[in-house]
Amino acid sequence: MTEIVNETQLLRAQGVIAPAGFQAAGITAGIKVSGAPDLALVFNEGPDYAAAGVFTRNKVKAAPVLWTQRVLSTGQLRAVILNSGGANACTGPAGFQDAHTTAEAVAAALSDWGTETGAIEVAVCSTGLIGDRLPMDKVLSGVRTIVRKMAAGLTGGDDAAHAIMTTDTVPKQVAVYHCNKWTVGGMAKGAGMLAPSLATMLCVLTTDAVVEPGALDQALRRATAHTFDRLDIDGCCSTNDTVLLLASGASGITPPQADLDDAVRHACDDLCAQLQADAEGVTKRVAVTVIGAASDNDALVAARMIARDSLVKIAVFGSDPNWGRVLAAVGMAPVTLDPDRICVLFNGAAVCIDGVGTPRARDVDLSTADIDITVDLRVGNASATIRTTDLSHTYVEENSVYSS
Amino acid sequence: MTEIVNETQLLRAQGVIAPAGFQAAGITAGIKVSGAPDLALVFNEGPDYAAAGVFTRNKVKAAPVLWTQRVLSTGQLRAVILNSGGANACTGPAGFQDAHTTAEAVAAALSDWGTETGAIEVAVCSTGLIGDRLPMDKVLSGVRTIVRKMAAGLTGGDDAAHAIMTTDTVPKQVAVYHCNKWTVGGMAKGAGMLAPSLATMLCVLTTDAVVEPGALDQALRRATAHTFDRLDIDGCCSTNDTVLLLASGASGITPPQADLDDAVRHACDDLCAQLQADAEGVTKRVAVTVIGAASDNDALVAARMIARDSLVKIAVFGSDPNWGRVLAAVGMAPVTLDPDRICVLFNGAAVCIDGVGTPRARDVDLSTADIDITVDLRVGNASATIRTTDLSHTYVEENSVYSS
Repeated sequence: MTEIVNETQLLRAQGVIAPAGFQAAGITAGIKVSGAPDLALVFNEGPDYAAAGVFTRNKVKAAPVLWTQRVLSTGQLRAVILNSGGANACTGPAGFQDAHTTAEAVAAALSDWGTETGAIEVAVCSTGLIGDRLPMDKVLSGVRTIVRKMAAGLTGGDDAAHAIMTTDTVPKQVAVYHCNKWTVGGMAKGAGMLAPSLATMLCVLTTDAVVEPGALDQALRRATAHTFDRLDIDGCCSTNDTVLLLASGASGITPPQADLDDAVRHACDDLCAQLQADAEGVTKRVAVTVIGAASDNDALVAARMIARDSLVKIAVFGSDPNWGRVLAAVGMAPVTLDPDRICVLFNGAAVCIDGVGTPRARDVDLSTADIDITVDLRVGNASATIRTTDLSHTYVEENSVYSS
Repeated sequence: MTEIVNETQLLRAQGVIAPAGFQAAGITAGIKVSGAPDLALVFNEGPDYAAAGVFTRNKVKAAPVLWTQRVLSTGQLRAVILNSGGANACTGPAGFQDAHTTAEAVAAALSDWGTETGAIEVAVCSTGLIGDRLPMDKVLSGVRTIVRKMAAGLTGGDDAAHAIMTTDTVPKQVAVYHCNKWTVGGMAKGAGMLAPSLATMLCVLTTDAVVEPGALDQALRRATAHTFDRLDIDGCCSTNDTVLLLASGASGITPPQADLDDAVRHACDDLCAQLQADAEGVTKRVAVTVIGAASDNDALVAARMIARDSLVKIAVFGSDPNWGRVLAAVGMAPVTLDPDRICVLFNGAAVCIDGVGTPRARDVDLSTADIDITVDLRVGNASATIRTTDLSHTYVEENSVYSS
């Protein structure tokens, strides 16, 4: 996939190591019983180490989230260690100590390799089943192995993107090249428990631009508010959601804030599309757009209400143009609306005008893989889009097996 | 089923005609293409005609809801006409005229039979697919037939309870006898689109007690707040939800408000249990109880958050004691909580204490048909229970077929 937007070029290769100044690795440490890859490392070679992060809004936060929020208070990161095969959530003070110990082990291994690093410069991300302690013997021996293999050039960005997968079926990577001068790269994972506030599970973004932590933070918050925050697969917000952005400054270029904002948002948007397309049990990619709302927030709330409605999502799974369920869903949104003015379009075809069905509404073809639901409230000028998926048998199947 | 609670006896027979002074009927009018019964009538013979109602909180209200809210402003009803096979929702002014015309036809037929009745004394309830006009020729000829058959004693309460079914598999009826002096009866339907604010689709309650409309309204609101409002199958609130309570005064007894409140709540509670047990695709009946909350509202909001969580419901379907999903769900509730104090019990067994899993948590048996999830927030003394069900393949199947 290649796409030229303004002066940026988007590719889906290399991911976090596309920008200069980054190395990455992925290995099988034995954390997953399946033997699949389960440990990833992203390493910032500098010369800068600026970093920013956004995290789950869930009050129940996993130990690695609590750890990473703490170390990020410096605005600096040298490395991110990520594991699949266990969320290290709801594990109490012992789980927090495990996250701390993991960061210390990464710092020690990097220091042994010649890069003096402290645990406070190492972010930790975990994903997998909530509630179990991690097998720390395997994590710690894995940490030593992954640093050694990365140093030897035996593993890279693709391996890292694979190692953070859980029920994902494909790795998600992106690279946005700005005029071939500086680059934003990234990788993400997340297939279920994609949520109302911060929808991804784990995402690491990198850039070789020269950026202060404050500007990095601004770019990241602006981007996630319009991308990950508007991806809602099942309304369930994880305990572990983390999006990190690391800047190495290796390009020597200091971009204007607007260019940085654009590139980061572009990268996040593309990763979101990849997460949506690979969501658990997805058979349809659905965009719910509310226009004509009284305010931006009204548009967002109404779009989310429709995107989260099980009966709407199941109708889409069945290719059933059941527009009445869309009206029933939006009617529960705490927003300004007049039921007698609402118009609804499915894939561009009007199925409801002024709150009443059109004659051919039941004949609209929803057998396509991409479904567009547009609702015009006709009470204002604001709009917003939420990305979601249908709700299929496979989603039920994948989530009903023992503690997935 | 017989149950003695204080001085009341509960039976599940006769339903709306258990109290003196009521007649009912149910017929096949041809509204449903399947040929199943689809038209029901409940008739109050008096001497009193007091009535109260509660309705969907959805802003998108079906025409029969708008009609019935209007006629109920008098606090009096002689009859309720109910149809399945079409919701008459999102049908605009023409749909409202259809509801009005139906009430006029009922009034005319009752007047012909010798009971002078005005359309303003006739409530209308509809259930079925949103968005289509009703086949009014069939409705109006059905109205003439149903009054004639009821007058001839050819059909009764059981037939009425059958005629309001949609995807229900069994009719729901109840009768609460108070000291054999006065009685509250009822029937209800509702299998999907059972919702956060008012969970039933349609319910008609009757009593032969002597009650003023204001007292009737109070008893009904108190009862529904603790019963139908706390049944949440899929978080989807219908456009047609209606609960009506009619009093004939035929017993000659004026009960104290507290006794009336108890009997009405008892009847509503039992109908809720029946709705839960027959919900679309149900394989487990789930009670989610939050205790130790800072306020009643916090307890209710937190319990609803858990009960509406797709991943929790699917885990229950799979008999998977995945307590981490319960913590992830409650962590998103906008209530006072401390993640490190939360305790969770599955069917009485502690699976999480102080936010951390217990050693045997993964071994708890959830293969039973009744599942109890209790969450102790340990920040206060308030509690609340929400009834829900699991989310199964059958639920997806039933709701993915063409415009069910």
